[in-house]
Order: sequence, then C-alpha cells, then structure tokens
Amino acid sequence: MKMHQVLIDQLVATWHQTIPLSQFMQVNVVSFALTHDTHINASSSNALLSSDQLITTAPLSPNINLHNTMFAGSIYTLMTLTGWGMVWLQQKLAAVEGDIVLADAHIKYHAPVRTQPIAKVIWPDTSLTALSQGRRVKTKLSVELWCDDLLCATFEGLYASLPVQVK
Amino acid sequence: MKMHQVLIDQLVATWHQTIPLSQFMQVNVVSFALTHDTHINASSSNALLSSDQLITTAPLSPNINLHNTMFAGSIYTLMTLTGWGMVWLQQKLAAVEGDIVLADAHIKYHAPVRTQPIAKVIWPDTSLTALSQGRRVKTKLSVELWCDDLLCATFEGLYASLPVQVK
Repeated sequence: MKMHQVLIDQLVATWHQTIPLSQFMQVNVVSFALTHDTHINASSSNALLSSDQLITTAPLSPNINLHNTMFAGSIYTLMTLTGWGMVWLQQKLAAVEGDIVLADAHIKYHAPVRTQPIAKVIWPDTSLTALSQGRRVKTKLSVELWCDDLLCATFEGLYASLPVQVK
Repeated sequence: MKMHQVLIDQLVATWHQTIPLSQFMQVNVVSFALTHDTHINASSSNALLSSDQLITTAPLSPNINLHNTMFAGSIYTLMTLTGWGMVWLQQKLAAVEGDIVLADAHIKYHAPVRTQPIAKVIWPDTSLTALSQGRRVKTKLSVELWCDDLLCATFEGLYASLPVQVK
C-alpha cells in the first residue's frame, strides 16, 4: 500500500480552507493507495503513480440528525467530496489541471449510519490527458459508504473536469 | 397566502436543534403557503389546512466552495431538508405522527449558484392517514433550486414516513 501523504494533506487543506461545510463536518482522508497488489506490474514508481482507491471518513457528532444517526445531507456530502477528491488526486498524479464540478448524482440510503462510517471510491482508469489539450473530461464515479461490515449507502456521481481558463 | 408561523418556527427549531449541519448552513424557511388561490374552495380553515408550497433558503457564506459559488453538498442538503420539512409540515397538518427518512435521491446541477438561492417544493397531495393505521407512506417530492430567475438545480427524493413505534 503506497500512500501520497503530501497530496493527501493538500487535499484535506483544500477542502477545509475553501469549503466551510467540509471543515464543520470534519471530513478527512483515511487512505489513498492501490486497491490490489496485482496492480503493481511495473516499477515501484509506476505503482506509486497508479494509486486508485480513496477512503475518507467523518465523525458522527457534527453530522447527526434527530434520530441520532448520520444525517442524509452529511452522508451525501461526504460521498460527494470523496468522488471530488479522487478526481483532484488523479489530476495531480497525471500532472494536469482542471476545475472539478459535479453535474449530477444519485444516492441510495440502505441502512441508518450508527457508527463512524468510511466512504470508498475506486478510480475507473479514466484518462485525464485531454485536459491538457483544452478539452473537458467526464468521469462517472461510484462511492460506497460502509459502517463496519454494513453497506449503508451507495452514490453515483458524474464529475466534469473543465480545462482551466486562461485569465 | 396563509402562513403557519407557529409550525414554521417549530420546524426551523427542530432542524437547528437536532441537525447541527442545518444550523451551520443557516437553513431557514421563507414561506409555507398555498400555491394558488384556486385551491381555496371551501371554508377559510380548509384553505389554511391545505398549504402546499414550502420555500426555504440558506445564505452563501457558510455554503461556498473553492469557486466561490454554492457547494454541491450544501445545495443537496438544502433541497433534502426542504423535502423533509414539507413531509414534516404535512404530517402536522394531518395530525399524524411518523419518522421521516429519505430512501433515495437524484440531483442535477444546472448552473453555478452565485446568489442566495431559494428551494421550492409543492406537495403532491399524498394522503398520510395510513400512518395513523400503523402503515408507512412513501412520497416522491420534486424540489427546485432557483437563483433569481435561473433554475440552478433539480432534486427528486423518495421520502418514507414510518409509523412511530410504541416504546
């Protein structure tokens, strides 16, 4: 499991400094690493570059509802940020720049969230190189929310990476 | 336009006291009233009972993102609470009790939110009386987010009102 601590710290700082809600929710990164060792099929630097699984979390206390379980809005926001963070990290790894926006999303709530959950997303290997040629890239991401061994919510979001406009 | 100020105050207090995120976001009610005067077809008390349009809002400053527009998670949360609030209000008007949970939701973001928006939902006239017979009621609600005259997001949520369990 290779980690990218500098990138992770930069992502969390970006969230907390520019999105007040993410700071209030105490959204954080658990890990950003390779899903399977089988992905390591080249040099160790390639293995480092190809990290494809992001796991995030947020504590219950700022995120509860009147049933004392996790609020539906907090669950959605954690999952949205997880997808957004994955696109952000992949852009950094690919050394391309783009503004990341969410176009649409669908969420299903399967069970009440009674313990601190993790949100997990795997990168579908979308190439982001078109960004450097001034073209937008769309990526559909599936995010899962787990509480211990229970799948509590599933989220599908369509993210667009937009070429950064020359000022 | 008839208002239910006591109910509105109770709804906002419920949000802010039991869902910390809603207080941080400063979610508030603009109005709860009749959509059209044509709905008033009986006594004035019926007209009062049949209020069917809820409008809410939240200021930009606690809800911004790194583009200085409204954060996707805040937009979703405002729209989710608007739908939830509508079910809560209709339960009060029908004098039935139920725990309200969101089963699934779909949101589309049409345009960046650059000014303080309003979220608007109209009640589809679902009967909630089954709740008093111990049965759950599901309601699909469509919520719109408007910034001045621009439709910035649309949301569809499936809410379930669950009979309150006898303790």
